[in-house]
Amino acid sequence: MHRDRPTFVSHLECSMTGERYEADRLHGLSRVGRPLLVRYELEALGQAVSRDAIAARPTDLWRWRELLPVRRTASIVSLGEIETPLVPIPRSGGPGAIVKDEGRLPTGSFKARGLVMAVAMARELGVTRIAMPTNGNAGAALAAYAARCGIETVVLCPEETPEVNVREIAAQGARVWRVNGQIDECGAIVARGAAEGRWFDFSTLKEPYRIEGKKTMGLELAAQFGWELPDAIFYPTGGGTGLIGMWKAFDEMERLGWIGSKRPRMYAVQASGCAPIVRAFEAGVDHAERWEDAATVAAGIRVPRAVGDFLILRAVRESGGRALAVGDPAILTAVDEAARKDGLLLCPEGGATLAAYRQALADGLVDPEERTVLFNCATGLKYPMPPADNWLDRNAEIDLASL
Amino acid sequence: MHRDRPTFVSHLECSMTGERYEADRLHGLSRVGRPLLVRYELEALGQAVSRDAIAARPTDLWRWRELLPVRRTASIVSLGEIETPLVPIPRSGGPGAIVKDEGRLPTGSFKARGLVMAVAMARELGVTRIAMPTNGNAGAALAAYAARCGIETVVLCPEETPEVNVREIAAQGARVWRVNGQIDECGAIVARGAAEGRWFDFSTLKEPYRIEGKKTMGLELAAQFGWELPDAIFYPTGGGTGLIGMWKAFDEMERLGWIGSKRPRMYAVQASGCAPIVRAFEAGVDHAERWEDAATVAAGIRVPRAVGDFLILRAVRESGGRALAVGDPAILTAVDEAARKDGLLLCPEGGATLAAYRQALADGLVDPEERTVLFNCATGLKYPMPPADNWLDRNAEIDLASL
Repeated sequence: MHRDRPTFVSHLECSMTGERYEADRLHGLSRVGRPLLVRYELEALGQAVSRDAIAARPTDLWRWRELLPVRRTASIVSLGEIETPLVPIPRSGGPGAIVKDEGRLPTGSFKARGLVMAVAMARELGVTRIAMPTNGNAGAALAAYAARCGIETVVLCPEETPEVNVREIAAQGARVWRVNGQIDECGAIVARGAAEGRWFDFSTLKEPYRIEGKKTMGLELAAQFGWELPDAIFYPTGGGTGLIGMWKAFDEMERLGWIGSKRPRMYAVQASGCAPIVRAFEAGVDHAERWEDAATVAAGIRVPRAVGDFLILRAVRESGGRALAVGDPAILTAVDEAARKDGLLLCPEGGATLAAYRQALADGLVDPEERTVLFNCATGLKYPMPPADNWLDRNAEIDLASL
Repeated sequence: MHRDRPTFVSHLECSMTGERYEADRLHGLSRVGRPLLVRYELEALGQAVSRDAIAARPTDLWRWRELLPVRRTASIVSLGEIETPLVPIPRSGGPGAIVKDEGRLPTGSFKARGLVMAVAMARELGVTRIAMPTNGNAGAALAAYAARCGIETVVLCPEETPEVNVREIAAQGARVWRVNGQIDECGAIVARGAAEGRWFDFSTLKEPYRIEGKKTMGLELAAQFGWELPDAIFYPTGGGTGLIGMWKAFDEMERLGWIGSKRPRMYAVQASGCAPIVRAFEAGVDHAERWEDAATVAAGIRVPRAVGDFLILRAVRESGGRALAVGDPAILTAVDEAARKDGLLLCPEGGATLAAYRQALADGLVDPEERTVLFNCATGLKYPMPPADNWLDRNAEIDLASL
C-alpha cells in the first residue's frame, strides 16, 4: 500500500497573489497572510499514471500518491485511511440523498484526511513540535498521527469543545488545554508560540498540506461516481478546507482529462449561530467579517473567522451553489430522523448538511432526483444522545406484550 | 455493489449432530438446541467464481456474495460494510502485531457484520419483529439495520451495559430495556417471548446467519494477506460467533482451493472476571459451565454461557491455539498504551486482545516476528476515557514555555 511512487510537486503558490514558493521547505501562510496551494507538474503526472491505474490500487487514501505532496514513502504515517462509503438515506433525505460517511476514518472524522498529510509532511520536513487550535476532531487526528511518529503536540480547545474530544486528544498523547474563548482566540495563542519558535503552527490552512489531504474527498467522489461528479454537494463549513480541497481536486482532474467540465453545485452549510460565510455570500463580498458571539450545537462549524474565506466563496459562486445557514433545532431533528429512519447516526455537522438539504429541496434549489452528496464529517458516536431509561425487573412478572 | 449473483446454499446442518435442515426457511436452534450452520454447494461455487474475481470487486462485505446466504439482491440492507483496515501497532504491540480495526464498520463495531446478514435474511424470510439480548454493540447494529428496512426491534440489555450503547440503540429506533441481570438472563426473557410467537429470537447463534456475516472476517483476512493466512489470531471471545465464523471460512476456502491447509493459531481471549471458555479449555472438556458473578470492564465479553462453547473450543484446539484470560488492569493499560504510543484508540475488548498478546509473547506462546492479528472489535470512542482538565485563561499572562 505504501510503496514508492513518482511525485510531481513543482512549487507552492499564494492563493491570493499567485506568488511562487519553493517546494520541499517548511511554509506557513504566504507573505500576504493567505493560504499556500501546492502545484503539480500535471502533464508529467498524467503521463506517469492513469485514473484506471489508480482505480485498480487498494482503496486507500494513499492510492492517490502521485497527486499528493509526500516525497518519501518513509514519511508516510497511517492508521488505515480507507475510502469512505456512500450511504443512501432514502427515508430521511429522499431518493437522491447520499451520505459520504467520513466518520469511518481514523479517529472517527474527516480531519484524519488533512492531518495524515500534514503530519507526514511535517515528518518529512523535520518538524518535532506542533501546536494547533481545534474545536475537537482536528486535534484528535493530529494527536493520533503525531503519537505514531513521535512528534510532540500541544492542542488548545475552546471551552465548549465536546468533552469526548478533549479526552481523546489527551488519551492519544497530546498536551491539551481548554481556553475561555473561540477557536480563533486559541489560534492567536498558537500563533504567538509559533512566532517565538516554540512549535510549528498547524491551524487550518496555515500550513499548506491539510488541504491536499482533504482534496482526496474530491478524488474519491470522482472514482466512486465513475468519473462523473454528482449534481450537488452539501458540505459543513467551518474553516472550509475540504470544500476548497475538493474544488482544487476537480480542477486538477479536469486538467488531467480524468473528468469533464461538469461540476457539482457546492453548498457551504453553516449554523445560524455562526454563519460568517453565509453573510458574506449574501452580501456579495469576497471576504467574511468575524462572527461575534458564535454559538451552535455543531462545534465543528463554530468558526467565527476563516482565513480561506475568499476561496470558499469563490468555489461556491463558481459552482452555482450557495452558502446556507440552518438552526440548531433543524440540525437536531435531522440527526434524529437519519438515525430512526435510515439507521445512520450523523454528527451534528452532518445533521446540518441534511437539514440544509431538506431546506434546499423545499426552496427548489435542488431536485429530489439529483444525485446529492451530504458530508457526514464525523461519527455520531462522539456526540451526546438523548437518554433512554427503561428498566425491567427480571424477578418480577414481565408483561411481554408491553415490550 | 449490490448486484445479482448466483447463490449456492444447499442446506443447513446441526453443528452438533449433523442433522440436515432445509434452506430458505426460518430456523432457530437445531432440535438438540445447538447452532445451525449454513452449507454451500462448494463445487458449483468454485466453478462460478474465482478468488481473483472476488478480489477485483469493490472491497465491501458484499463482494463475498456467493459465499453468503442471501438469495435476493433486494433483501440486502447496507450501511456501507467496508473492508476493515489492518493497522500495525509496532510501539505498543511489537513488530508482528497488526490490529484489524473493526471499529470502522457501521455502528462502530464488528457486530455489523453478523447483523447485516441476519437482518437481510430476516427480511428475505418475512420476519417483521425481532428481539435480542445484548451487551450493547450487537443491539446497536440490529437497531440500525432493522430501522433501515422497517423491521420492529425489542432489545434487552444487562444493567451494566455502557450508557452510550443503550442511547445509540434507542436513537436508531429500537425499543430498549435495561434488565437487572446478565446477558443470558436477558436472553431467557427473549426466548420466552419467541416461544409465545411475539418476535423472532436474534440471540447469538440462535439464528443461523450472524455466523455467516462474521465469517467475512476470515474471508477478508485471507484476501488482505494475499491468500496466506497470518500466523496467529487473538480474538475477544464472548459468544464466539466470529471465531467460529472465521474457522468455517478457512475451511470453505481450503475446500475451494483458495487457500492451503495452513491455519493461524486461534487465541480465544476472555476477561479474568468472566472466563468460562478458558476454564473449559484448561479442564480439557468440550462444554463450558456458566460463569457466576461475571464482572469485567470489557462488557462485550461478559458472556457467562455460550451456546457455541464446543465450537469455540474445537476451533481453538484444532488450530493449536489457546484460551487466555486477562485482568481488567492489563486491559486498561493496553488501551492506554495503544493510544499513547500508536495513536489507536481500542475498545476494552480490543485492549484485552493486546494484553493477551503481550502476555503470550512473555510466555513464549507467540514469536514477536510472527504475523499476528489482534481484533479490535469496536471503536474506542464508545467507551469512557480518563478526564483531561487543563485550563488556560486567555486574558491572563500565559507562560507559553509551560504548555
